[in-house]
Amino acid sequence: MTTILGTRLPLIQGALAQLSTAPLVSAVSAAGGLGVLTTVDLTPTTLAAAIAAVRAATDQPFGVNLMLQQPNMAALIPYLIEHPVPVVTTSAGTPKAFCAALQAVGTKVVAVIPSVKVARKMVALGVDALVAEGMESGGHIGTSTTFSLVQQVTAAVDLPVFAAGGIADSTGVRAAEALGAVGVQSGTAFLLAQETPIAPAYQQALIAADDTATVVTGRALGDAVRCLANPLTAAYFAAEADGADAAALHALLDGSLGRAIAGDVDHGTMMAGQIAGKLTQVASAQAIVQAMYA
Amino acid sequence: MTTILGTRLPLIQGALAQLSTAPLVSAVSAAGGLGVLTTVDLTPTTLAAAIAAVRAATDQPFGVNLMLQQPNMAALIPYLIEHPVPVVTTSAGTPKAFCAALQAVGTKVVAVIPSVKVARKMVALGVDALVAEGMESGGHIGTSTTFSLVQQVTAAVDLPVFAAGGIADSTGVRAAEALGAVGVQSGTAFLLAQETPIAPAYQQALIAADDTATVVTGRALGDAVRCLANPLTAAYFAAEADGADAAALHALLDGSLGRAIAGDVDHGTMMAGQIAGKLTQVASAQAIVQAMYA
Repeated sequence: MTTILGTRLPLIQGALAQLSTAPLVSAVSAAGGLGVLTTVDLTPTTLAAAIAAVRAATDQPFGVNLMLQQPNMAALIPYLIEHPVPVVTTSAGTPKAFCAALQAVGTKVVAVIPSVKVARKMVALGVDALVAEGMESGGHIGTSTTFSLVQQVTAAVDLPVFAAGGIADSTGVRAAEALGAVGVQSGTAFLLAQETPIAPAYQQALIAADDTATVVTGRALGDAVRCLANPLTAAYFAAEADGADAAALHALLDGSLGRAIAGDVDHGTMMAGQIAGKLTQVASAQAIVQAMYA
Repeated sequence: MTTILGTRLPLIQGALAQLSTAPLVSAVSAAGGLGVLTTVDLTPTTLAAAIAAVRAATDQPFGVNLMLQQPNMAALIPYLIEHPVPVVTTSAGTPKAFCAALQAVGTKVVAVIPSVKVARKMVALGVDALVAEGMESGGHIGTSTTFSLVQQVTAAVDLPVFAAGGIADSTGVRAAEALGAVGVQSGTAFLLAQETPIAPAYQQALIAADDTATVVTGRALGDAVRCLANPLTAAYFAAEADGADAAALHALLDGSLGRAIAGDVDHGTMMAGQIAGKLTQVASAQAIVQAMYA
């Protein structure tokens, strides 16, 4: 039995900017889920290398995520039409300009959406499936919560819907299914995978986090990002309260994900969802998959 | 079969400030749930009249909500110890000073909590049950979402947990149970009860709302409130962006719930949860209960 995505399990590994590279992606796909490559900062050449590495490690389906506000999209989209992959997930924009072209070469297109309105637009566009992502997710977020969003999207559209936000184990999977989802997308849980190229200090901060350990920066900038509270986020909120302008706020945040990944847990942005409070240990990607689908 | 609260159904009607008066409360309790009286602006005399009206209408258990930041608590708490009711729910504070005294006269104490940390404090205090309330709820909210909060609270404590936030029908109930809750608290759904003394214009705004129709005011004031977006909330956010001080922001919001209830949908605060997007009609309290527990 396979899912709409060709995988054994209805589980998508959420793309992790700079982190979901070939080792994690191939391990998730080999375990039965859909590993999804990040394309942040990639060129067609480096993307080709990442895809080749996944294919060398597993014959299972995988995906490539397109963050549509990234400047490299104009180069990567034509490359993916020329060199098809099983699945493309899209976020932070509409795949309108290239959805049909990808589907014509056999690629499933899965759109990450934050509202019923955008879900309906994606249905009209003809995408293959949706990820309804709640604002408890780590990284860039909307305003609707998983519990509210998923049940309203599944009631409104006929496409397969994967729930995202707050899911790290079988409890989350069962609740997502009760809300009408066919499966889940999970991101934060895979930050603790052994295969993820992340500093141990970032992973330890995730393990230490409780249910209220995250905050949302960037609301004033129109770019809300959920991450672990730390000295950087305290400095950000202090600057915001002092009336700092957008340039000053961006100066605090720009490049800060890279700092966190490198282990600077005081000055980096440690993207994480609210479910971080439930995470207790570093484990193999396979074990993380099995915690959701035993 | 009865629940921990003595009701037939594991359903608590969330207290609605100024709105959950005797007609709604008695109708919910008669339908098998736990109707809960608001005490906002009540004195012992007017609370006694409300309780008498509920008892005249039904012999089923009901509750009284104590918003612990309200100035009338010093008068109402001694009254409820002298004149016991089946259930008291508490919010916006700790029932530490009076929990044991209420339980000694046979009252079940149910604490509404926003985090695992507060849940653990309530367990130590010996309350009878918890309501874990997500930030998709209407009115005063915390930061954790229903999906994230409920599964983390139920994993952390042994008390019965009712889930609140995003629940208006049987889909929400099943998902809450999957997250480990024994039942639910629902507030926004009962704004559309025929028995609720609310202006038709407010109810029509709820029916017209979609899944992203709510906003959160008061974050800068430390008093986050979820309500339907309208000209008042636009004015509030404009003032906040202009650097208005707390007094100016309070001047916009103070008394605004009363204006909404009276039908001023432009200048009132129409408290509502994100689940408003799923509500389609005014109905009897009994029908609303049956939509959750058929």
